[in-house]
Amino acid sequence: MAESWANLGIDLHLEPSGPGLRAGLTAALRDAVRGGRLAPGTRLPSSRTLAVDLGVARNTVAEAYADLVAEGWLTARQGSGTRVAERDVPRPEAPPRSRIPRGRPAYDLRPGFPDLSSFPRAAWLKAARHALTHAPNEAFGYSDPRGRPELREALADYLARVRGVQADPDRVVICSGFAHALVLLDQVLRGRGVREVAVERYAVGLHRDLLERGGLRTRPLPFDELGTDTRPLASGSAGAVLVTSAHQFPMGLPLHPDRRAEAVAWARASGGLILEDDYDGEFRYDRQPVGALQGLDPERVVYLGTASKSLAPGLRLGWMILPRPLADEVTAAKGVDDWTCGTPDQLTLARFLRSGDYDRHVRAMRQRYRRRRDQLVTALAAHAPAVRAHGIAAGLHAVLELPPGTEQSVIRAAAWQGLAVTRLRELRHPAADPAGTPEALVVGYGTPPEHAWPGALEALCRALG
Amino acid sequence: MAESWANLGIDLHLEPSGPGLRAGLTAALRDAVRGGRLAPGTRLPSSRTLAVDLGVARNTVAEAYADLVAEGWLTARQGSGTRVAERDVPRPEAPPRSRIPRGRPAYDLRPGFPDLSSFPRAAWLKAARHALTHAPNEAFGYSDPRGRPELREALADYLARVRGVQADPDRVVICSGFAHALVLLDQVLRGRGVREVAVERYAVGLHRDLLERGGLRTRPLPFDELGTDTRPLASGSAGAVLVTSAHQFPMGLPLHPDRRAEAVAWARASGGLILEDDYDGEFRYDRQPVGALQGLDPERVVYLGTASKSLAPGLRLGWMILPRPLADEVTAAKGVDDWTCGTPDQLTLARFLRSGDYDRHVRAMRQRYRRRRDQLVTALAAHAPAVRAHGIAAGLHAVLELPPGTEQSVIRAAAWQGLAVTRLRELRHPAADPAGTPEALVVGYGTPPEHAWPGALEALCRALG
Repeated sequence: MAESWANLGIDLHLEPSGPGLRAGLTAALRDAVRGGRLAPGTRLPSSRTLAVDLGVARNTVAEAYADLVAEGWLTARQGSGTRVAERDVPRPEAPPRSRIPRGRPAYDLRPGFPDLSSFPRAAWLKAARHALTHAPNEAFGYSDPRGRPELREALADYLARVRGVQADPDRVVICSGFAHALVLLDQVLRGRGVREVAVERYAVGLHRDLLERGGLRTRPLPFDELGTDTRPLASGSAGAVLVTSAHQFPMGLPLHPDRRAEAVAWARASGGLILEDDYDGEFRYDRQPVGALQGLDPERVVYLGTASKSLAPGLRLGWMILPRPLADEVTAAKGVDDWTCGTPDQLTLARFLRSGDYDRHVRAMRQRYRRRRDQLVTALAAHAPAVRAHGIAAGLHAVLELPPGTEQSVIRAAAWQGLAVTRLRELRHPAADPAGTPEALVVGYGTPPEHAWPGALEALCRALG
Repeated sequence: MAESWANLGIDLHLEPSGPGLRAGLTAALRDAVRGGRLAPGTRLPSSRTLAVDLGVARNTVAEAYADLVAEGWLTARQGSGTRVAERDVPRPEAPPRSRIPRGRPAYDLRPGFPDLSSFPRAAWLKAARHALTHAPNEAFGYSDPRGRPELREALADYLARVRGVQADPDRVVICSGFAHALVLLDQVLRGRGVREVAVERYAVGLHRDLLERGGLRTRPLPFDELGTDTRPLASGSAGAVLVTSAHQFPMGLPLHPDRRAEAVAWARASGGLILEDDYDGEFRYDRQPVGALQGLDPERVVYLGTASKSLAPGLRLGWMILPRPLADEVTAAKGVDDWTCGTPDQLTLARFLRSGDYDRHVRAMRQRYRRRRDQLVTALAAHAPAVRAHGIAAGLHAVLELPPGTEQSVIRAAAWQGLAVTRLRELRHPAADPAGTPEALVVGYGTPPEHAWPGALEALCRALG
């Protein structure tokens, strides 16, 4: 049997019988044509001949031929039998498949990432089991574009309890992370005629870029010893302001009460919106977390949160709590094509919240990050006493202020140690006055997996010392 | 203890001690301020007094006050004690939370949906367990915007084996469904200067709308007894064509071999692109599925598939197999902000494919849908012999051609029976000549859950009979 096929140049692996036989035959012929081993125009043996050769039913061969005619690989013309179809261009062999490389830097101390090794796999699976077992059938269909009701309800309850947010489930919109939320809000803000958004002097550059990509201007607010200064809003022309109010990123201060009040007063007087990026509000070590600004005025504040710091960015789950009219506008901006997030992950997070596992996980991670924070402070005191750590009361990162004139050499030393770090200056708004920015690193002590943390801390101390 | 608090109008539930005590106190105070029970300007008891009242440490009260000052609910001024912050606008009580209604029509026979009751929950959970147990830590971080490599590799192998697709994992891009894919492609096509896309005479209106929303024109191709006619492409000005080649939606024919060849010849000669919507290619009943057009020329065909018919739309998982240069352009169009799909669901689908469970599920569903198809044909013969069923060789739906002049009354009868159905005319391109469209229903026999199918079929027969 292999003999005859060898003559046709076909690599054939046939199952002995059944539908697999026809499928195998079709696939082998298709590959032979595609790979050029059966050249265009080649006349194939009649189905009767080939069936005898192969010891299979004639019908099996006839069906394989018919399949390939239907697909366009073969042609069957009355009187001229079955031939390999002519193709205009000789097709090259498929290139070898590239397997995709995976990897991360040796020691990653960039801010903005949780310890990925901490993802609570077992608890997540337990929640998935419960969620999928109890989900109604309709959950597997096209859901509400705002996201699964189970998740919106669980989040509304959790955020009210833990972050002081006023959250009706109708005003919760699930999205696939903070950037997705920002893209949707950008669209809605422009639709409302907003031309400028005030942002913080120090912030994640990607967020600025996303706002500016759609045509908005961003303008930096000043930053002083009390943190971001919201007073200039009143005399400015921004239609919205983006703030990390519970824990300024990266500087680490909460937005001062007077400046919270200034921001809310501005929003009420001007009709502006406050976009509150509560990216790591649950992680505060020495006292209770600072509650969300949103609770002060749910009609003027958009609360934005994600599972990216508390659980993992890979979940691609974020949420917005929106003023009522805006909830409808954002839902419309999502449109019929943007259901975005998969039901199983949404239902699992809902169950994870309801079961108390989310609270337990956050508590465990808070202990882990606090321990690292303490170790960082202790190690700095011992090995780099000239370095001053800021913003260590909360969060997954610290700002390490360096002695003037040393940043360049520290960066070189860090590279030498295989350390990925971020400079404070990289997070400064391009339009902000560079004066006043200290030489400093922003160190994400939450980023390394638990086993790599001691090594990362040692490498950091060597780079700083 | 409740006594003193009752005087302040606060609804207090305190845990006996520990961090929960402070949190509970803070939350109770916050709620009282928010709800208006503590009016703006009200002076609060000193922390010492309140601590004695409550039988808690003074520090606990002081910390709760400090938290609420930080959040802006209270103010603390030297000499005037702690007061409820002034707010410009009296805030109404939070409205009662609306719980979200859930529901579907009595009998849903609209096409485009699988039987949602068939989602393989247990097998999916088994795959999730394997996937999450074996996933590398980095899988929980920000992944490749093209999607998880495990899933792209599993899909490349599966689609090559089952659909005859030539799929290097580098050219696979995961997205959150067909509409998401179309939005991305639309952006890339316009970037390449494409102004017009040819579409089929009958198709899903949403897909046309998505293309046109970005500014592209869509122009319908003719449809005759051989199916969609691709010959006019050669003399037209379209830069791309969107086709359901394995199983025309909704008419049910595969694209004729000659017309496959015409389409590929046009694409090669003109530099045009074929967008192949393989929405239900696995479901063919009486013979082997028709292989994908993409295999004929992977440099000119974009293969588009999803898990929406084979598993569930709620997964929000789709995929594109792209010509090499286009893979880079689509990845760029996704951008840094569009990671889209959650890792757990992606990894689970990858495992589901690798384990053979996907094949098993498709096979089981093929049997279920074939049985329904057979029951539909039998029932029509018995109860509505004047109705002709088209496109029944494959898929999850059939076109039921009605005797001329009866469509209106059948639609009324269907509504009376509580049946959701779709008319063929609703799927016709608005620019296509209405002449030649038979009076017909497009009936999704795959849509009802298994227990509802017999009732749905009976209701349909009553409406038709």
